[in-house]
Amino acid sequence: MTAPKKVVLAYSGGLDTSIILKWLQTEYGCEVVTFTADLGQGEELEPARKKAEMMGASAIYIEDLREEFVRDFVFPMFRANALYEGLYLLGTSIARPLISKRLVEIAAAEGADAVSHGATGKGNDQVRFELAAYALNPEIKVVAPWREWDLGSRTKLIEFAEKHQIPIAKDKRGEAPFSVDANLLHTSSEGKVLEDPAQIAPEYVYQRTVAPEDAPDTPEIVEIGFERGDAVSINGEAMSPATILTKLNELGGKHGVGRLDLVENRFVGMKSRGIYETPGGTVLLEAHRGIEQITLDSGAGHLKDSIMPRYAELIYNGFWFSPEREMLQALIDKSQEHVSGIVSVKLYKGSCNTVARWSENSLYSEAHVTFEEDMGAYDQTDAQGFIQLNALRLKLLAARNRRLSK
Amino acid sequence: MTAPKKVVLAYSGGLDTSIILKWLQTEYGCEVVTFTADLGQGEELEPARKKAEMMGASAIYIEDLREEFVRDFVFPMFRANALYEGLYLLGTSIARPLISKRLVEIAAAEGADAVSHGATGKGNDQVRFELAAYALNPEIKVVAPWREWDLGSRTKLIEFAEKHQIPIAKDKRGEAPFSVDANLLHTSSEGKVLEDPAQIAPEYVYQRTVAPEDAPDTPEIVEIGFERGDAVSINGEAMSPATILTKLNELGGKHGVGRLDLVENRFVGMKSRGIYETPGGTVLLEAHRGIEQITLDSGAGHLKDSIMPRYAELIYNGFWFSPEREMLQALIDKSQEHVSGIVSVKLYKGSCNTVARWSENSLYSEAHVTFEEDMGAYDQTDAQGFIQLNALRLKLLAARNRRLSK
Amino acid sequence: MTAPKKVVLAYSGGLDTSIILKWLQTEYGCEVVTFTADLGQGEELEPARKKAEMMGASAIYIEDLREEFVRDFVFPMFRANALYEGLYLLGTSIARPLISKRLVEIAAAEGADAVSHGATGKGNDQVRFELAAYALNPEIKVVAPWREWDLGSRTKLIEFAEKHQIPIAKDKRGEAPFSVDANLLHTSSEGKVLEDPAQIAPEYVYQRTVAPEDAPDTPEIVEIGFERGDAVSINGEAMSPATILTKLNELGGKHGVGRLDLVENRFVGMKSRGIYETPGGTVLLEAHRGIEQITLDSGAGHLKDSIMPRYAELIYNGFWFSPEREMLQALIDKSQEHVSGIVSVKLYKGSCNTVARWSENSLYSEAHVTFEEDMGAYDQTDAQGFIQLNALRLKLLAARNRRLSK
Amino acid sequence: MTAPKKVVLAYSGGLDTSIILKWLQTEYGCEVVTFTADLGQGEELEPARKKAEMMGASAIYIEDLREEFVRDFVFPMFRANALYEGLYLLGTSIARPLISKRLVEIAAAEGADAVSHGATGKGNDQVRFELAAYALNPEIKVVAPWREWDLGSRTKLIEFAEKHQIPIAKDKRGEAPFSVDANLLHTSSEGKVLEDPAQIAPEYVYQRTVAPEDAPDTPEIVEIGFERGDAVSINGEAMSPATILTKLNELGGKHGVGRLDLVENRFVGMKSRGIYETPGGTVLLEAHRGIEQITLDSGAGHLKDSIMPRYAELIYNGFWFSPEREMLQALIDKSQEHVSGIVSVKLYKGSCNTVARWSENSLYSEAHVTFEEDMGAYDQTDAQGFIQLNALRLKLLAARNRRLSK
Repeated sequence: MTAPKKVVLAYSGGLDTSIILKWLQTEYGCEVVTFTADLGQGEELEPARKKAEMMGASAIYIEDLREEFVRDFVFPMFRANALYEGLYLLGTSIARPLISKRLVEIAAAEGADAVSHGATGKGNDQVRFELAAYALNPEIKVVAPWREWDLGSRTKLIEFAEKHQIPIAKDKRGEAPFSVDANLLHTSSEGKVLEDPAQIAPEYVYQRTVAPEDAPDTPEIVEIGFERGDAVSINGEAMSPATILTKLNELGGKHGVGRLDLVENRFVGMKSRGIYETPGGTVLLEAHRGIEQITLDSGAGHLKDSIMPRYAELIYNGFWFSPEREMLQALIDKSQEHVSGIVSVKLYKGSCNTVARWSENSLYSEAHVTFEEDMGAYDQTDAQGFIQLNALRLKLLAARNRRLSK
Repeated sequence: MTAPKKVVLAYSGGLDTSIILKWLQTEYGCEVVTFTADLGQGEELEPARKKAEMMGASAIYIEDLREEFVRDFVFPMFRANALYEGLYLLGTSIARPLISKRLVEIAAAEGADAVSHGATGKGNDQVRFELAAYALNPEIKVVAPWREWDLGSRTKLIEFAEKHQIPIAKDKRGEAPFSVDANLLHTSSEGKVLEDPAQIAPEYVYQRTVAPEDAPDTPEIVEIGFERGDAVSINGEAMSPATILTKLNELGGKHGVGRLDLVENRFVGMKSRGIYETPGGTVLLEAHRGIEQITLDSGAGHLKDSIMPRYAELIYNGFWFSPEREMLQALIDKSQEHVSGIVSVKLYKGSCNTVARWSENSLYSEAHVTFEEDMGAYDQTDAQGFIQLNALRLKLLAARNRRLSK
Repeated sequence: MTAPKKVVLAYSGGLDTSIILKWLQTEYGCEVVTFTADLGQGEELEPARKKAEMMGASAIYIEDLREEFVRDFVFPMFRANALYEGLYLLGTSIARPLISKRLVEIAAAEGADAVSHGATGKGNDQVRFELAAYALNPEIKVVAPWREWDLGSRTKLIEFAEKHQIPIAKDKRGEAPFSVDANLLHTSSEGKVLEDPAQIAPEYVYQRTVAPEDAPDTPEIVEIGFERGDAVSINGEAMSPATILTKLNELGGKHGVGRLDLVENRFVGMKSRGIYETPGGTVLLEAHRGIEQITLDSGAGHLKDSIMPRYAELIYNGFWFSPEREMLQALIDKSQEHVSGIVSVKLYKGSCNTVARWSENSLYSEAHVTFEEDMGAYDQTDAQGFIQLNALRLKLLAARNRRLSK
Repeated sequence: MTAPKKVVLAYSGGLDTSIILKWLQTEYGCEVVTFTADLGQGEELEPARKKAEMMGASAIYIEDLREEFVRDFVFPMFRANALYEGLYLLGTSIARPLISKRLVEIAAAEGADAVSHGATGKGNDQVRFELAAYALNPEIKVVAPWREWDLGSRTKLIEFAEKHQIPIAKDKRGEAPFSVDANLLHTSSEGKVLEDPAQIAPEYVYQRTVAPEDAPDTPEIVEIGFERGDAVSINGEAMSPATILTKLNELGGKHGVGRLDLVENRFVGMKSRGIYETPGGTVLLEAHRGIEQITLDSGAGHLKDSIMPRYAELIYNGFWFSPEREMLQALIDKSQEHVSGIVSVKLYKGSCNTVARWSENSLYSEAHVTFEEDMGAYDQTDAQGFIQLNALRLKLLAARNRRLSK
């Protein structure tokens, strides 16, 4: 790779990406454009502008992407009931492609030949950032300082910062006891105090949900309205996608819902342990399943279930912008046409359960299922033939096995 | 089908199967052998013996199958983390094949040409009973009185019982407000007051778990030991399979764990709503996932995840004794060789979460994942090549699309 | 089911469906509307009109559906490279839903309450006809005479025909040595002389393809053009869908291509043996694979491959009009956007092989794959990191296993 | 990676691996052990011994692995009917893990710390060799000269050879017009004259099969006997695995069977075009499918079909020694218990078709399928109920859609 001339950097305003900003300038003598996105991580972004200005960024982009994030990334993913390895709601994975998309678009607008990010060489995020970038611009260069530089230790980073007059917040001098990523969908924590999966994670790691023990003693029932697979209202009030997720985060967080302590398999080949808090997402998944229960036919539902693990793996591995993810999305979206209605979810001290659901589009037929007289809706003698023909091959097998064992 | 001469009946001792016993005798003039199994449903079985004797059963089998049930059916299924439609732990489904197996074996021992059960013509259980029976004996006859007789209403049943001097418990004269099935793995309730899925299920439906609101205010952490994928101990004490599940039921039930309100798709084509209580099974699933997290490789785990929905569907639909279920079981069992270790699960007011796990067989490598210096265990520059080759096809696609859009 | 008042019958004009026509009139005293479709079976349809008139059909529909058949059924299926049980091109299966669709539409137009078909109670076709009909009109009645009447033997059928003055062609008095179904996609033969799968099928069974031994001694290379996954031209000449398939049938048939002797698993539970001749379809499948080889990315292709067996099974089992088939179709169609170009297929004495393919949309990159100097298109050192990270989990497994075996 | 001290080299005796032998000695100053395997590639191995001696190999291993290759690698794979991307029989892929296994075993025996191979940095083989090696010994070093050295052009290679007195066969001075790999299962050719997939491959590329045009004018029918999924006899004569494959290669090759011109997707991200000749394997696949048709139940067969693409992809990508391949193998092997019998395959001018099959274990039931009177084996009225219950959900969907469209 030839040296980059102008780089768009995913810039948080924090110490690490500030060091990267400076390092890019000094290492490559290149212009650096900063891009800071509000994905709901809960931090003020204006300080990032000031810092970027101070450090000589050649252009500064600060954008509120919360609605786009939820509408075009989070919601499509939730239509699939996606869970990585059975449990993880993919909160970090789903944010990366959007950031890369904007990095590449800004690079085009600014005439930059490269993009850069602050992800390390051990994790999944580097893969997600870079696969998305290459899928959108096959000629873009990607600079991944953590894989290149020799600032591998905290001491060296601090030295570099001091040498280049990069302001260091007091609490950043020492090493953080764990590493955090946050956006509107979730907060993840990993590393350091969490590295031994046999040790229970300390309570102070959790940042977004109260401990179930500290949650209200009274359950709360929330009504979530869906249209075509996406949440559109809470307790009867219509809201935008990002507003809904924000509100569900409040509700879930208050009731201690959405904590997950997981050892997962990274795409790069190792296992890692993470603490995830996805309060709103956990409620959303439960409610989406609830509404699908009455509006989705079994053929559709079972097909969705069977491809879900692959869909989730694609997102986890960074293949959001890939033909196969888009093909699976087409399949999933096709199924959601009638997934509309209202679900009641009960939140209480860490648990979150569907307790009722209603839809104009319901496929549930009391006439068929009732224990009462069904007025001919269902002819029980049909079951005889159904069973006989389903059994036929099993009988032939059994007869064969008898014959052979004689 | 020619008339059966001697029938082995799955007999609970309750009113319905007592009526069936009598009906078989009067309708077909045949001998009836009763078979009553203790699968952990929590009822005394000796009254069933007395009733069967009184009604002239030609032979009476009463058997404690709890260990066989858990060891040969429940545990193999849990190795797969099986969930039907994402949520249901298959508590009823997994018990049916064992009952059919014994019915068929007893028929062979007694020289009976038919078996009979009390499942209705609308449900899944008839299918499960009968597919299992035919798979084990292709020539067995199955008598399903609910699909044959004209005793379709409560009134007619009671009339029949009175006419034939079948004792009717007081509380059985009226209709039950819902229908119940129970065994060591779960209790399910459905029908009547539960038939409207938009109505929250009344608290009195729950029989095996306290309401989360009534559960202890203090969480409890339970340590579950696994060997080769099966639970073998609780809090360090080795126990038999049935004893473990019994103990986990107590623990889970006490903490309100394992309630599920579900609208599911029956194999016979309709949707139904069930309330399931699977306290021990819910804890067991969580713990099994916890131990797999550190002992199962990602290739193995992702393959298991991808076939799980089909495996669960097979069991739900009644295909336990089928080549494809056995093939999937071979795949699953192969993966469990090293799934041994200890998991800590926290139970609290309806929730149940893995909080720590340890294994001698762990694949988790702190050396690789650490944020600290890793002594060369992992070379971050490898990620560069890994990403480049994973990106290659995406770049070729992007280049093609660019070319075409010009 | 209450007796039908007016029935739309899938009517071929042959003896069997003529008997059905009369039987419906006499058995139910109902009006019968006949529907005869040209799906390319290669028979004149006007005789069917005369016969229907003579027998008092209350309305007569005769329609040329060849273009609709190929465009809306055959081509979408071929986009998936669908093969049932690895080998069968689904020639009969794909025609049934179209016939049912028209039956149901004509019933609506004519105010008929029922449809009827001549498929037997042992085969797949009854299932395909009826599932499609119910999926399009949940209240339609279906009359399946072969499951109802007592005309189960040839003798009784002939008696019925004679009694009702139904003309009987001389060669129909005796039993045919095998049973045939034909349409533009294929001809299938089964039954009687073919019932022993250990006996080689006699040459006279084949009707649409010359024996490979009798095919021309000179190979022929055919160029097939594709656009978005569908064939659009042969040897540079643009043609309509049905014309293309007709032309490929001629070419394939002439060279003995597309014969298949198969024992397959019917949906109703038994195995059956069929001789299939699908000359044009065999060429089309080969060519479609050929064009996908250079225009489809591996992620897209492998996903398609993995869902193909399920897609084929759905069509075979009669679930064309089902949510899951439509979802899979959405996935497949999404993949075909760039599947355009030209494929050369060589036909010779029963074999049919892609020998060259070219596309403007090609993803094949000589620059990358070349054994020559590649000008930096591909950096071989990237493979090092790619392999190392793919190997990481295998190394961790191997290290675990070593540790345990000590 | 620290420099290797002693290397086991996969040594063919040809120019390229001879150069590697010398290069390892000079570049690393290390001992080199050579390993030359007879996998049926059809070359004499003794010259390799002489050359290795002459060049100072510290130990020389020459082994006939043909039986192990077919018995433990080829046959297990054929039980799955494995085809990569629908067409490729994986002839190269399946040989690599065996070579790596012996390299690692010899390294252990010889106290070597590294293994080495002659695969380039662009292909799949490097991945297959190395993943297998790491899976068997996590600490082994792998030296891949083609990714390391600067001998990237033919000229430089020849210079190096001359400088080090490595004998160069006359016909190796110039560049070969294409590159070849061969073993008992197949011969593959790629590169150079084959690099344009729009050009028909020249006839001289084919080395193992006659052109169909030159094959005998008379078809030949071969009877292949199977036991538990593996071929055990030809025309009634029992043979060892390697002997059977050798014999089938003769038969197939003589009739021009098994040629494939394919553009495939490499694991490293690019497309490549290969000409494959797999005469015996093509016959074996056809015959294995033939015997499965009558001995394998549909549930088993459809499950096998559905996992086959993933199984084939794992082998193609080099994951033979992985938990997931072994899990899939367990599933496949479980299905083969009754896959025994005899299949007749007709070979004629490039085509290869099953024409008859017979088995003691047959599940084909003439009694059920017959068009004749079936003596009650099958009750056609059962189909009514079977269809009704399969249709139920489709009716509920149709009723919902009607309701909504009003």
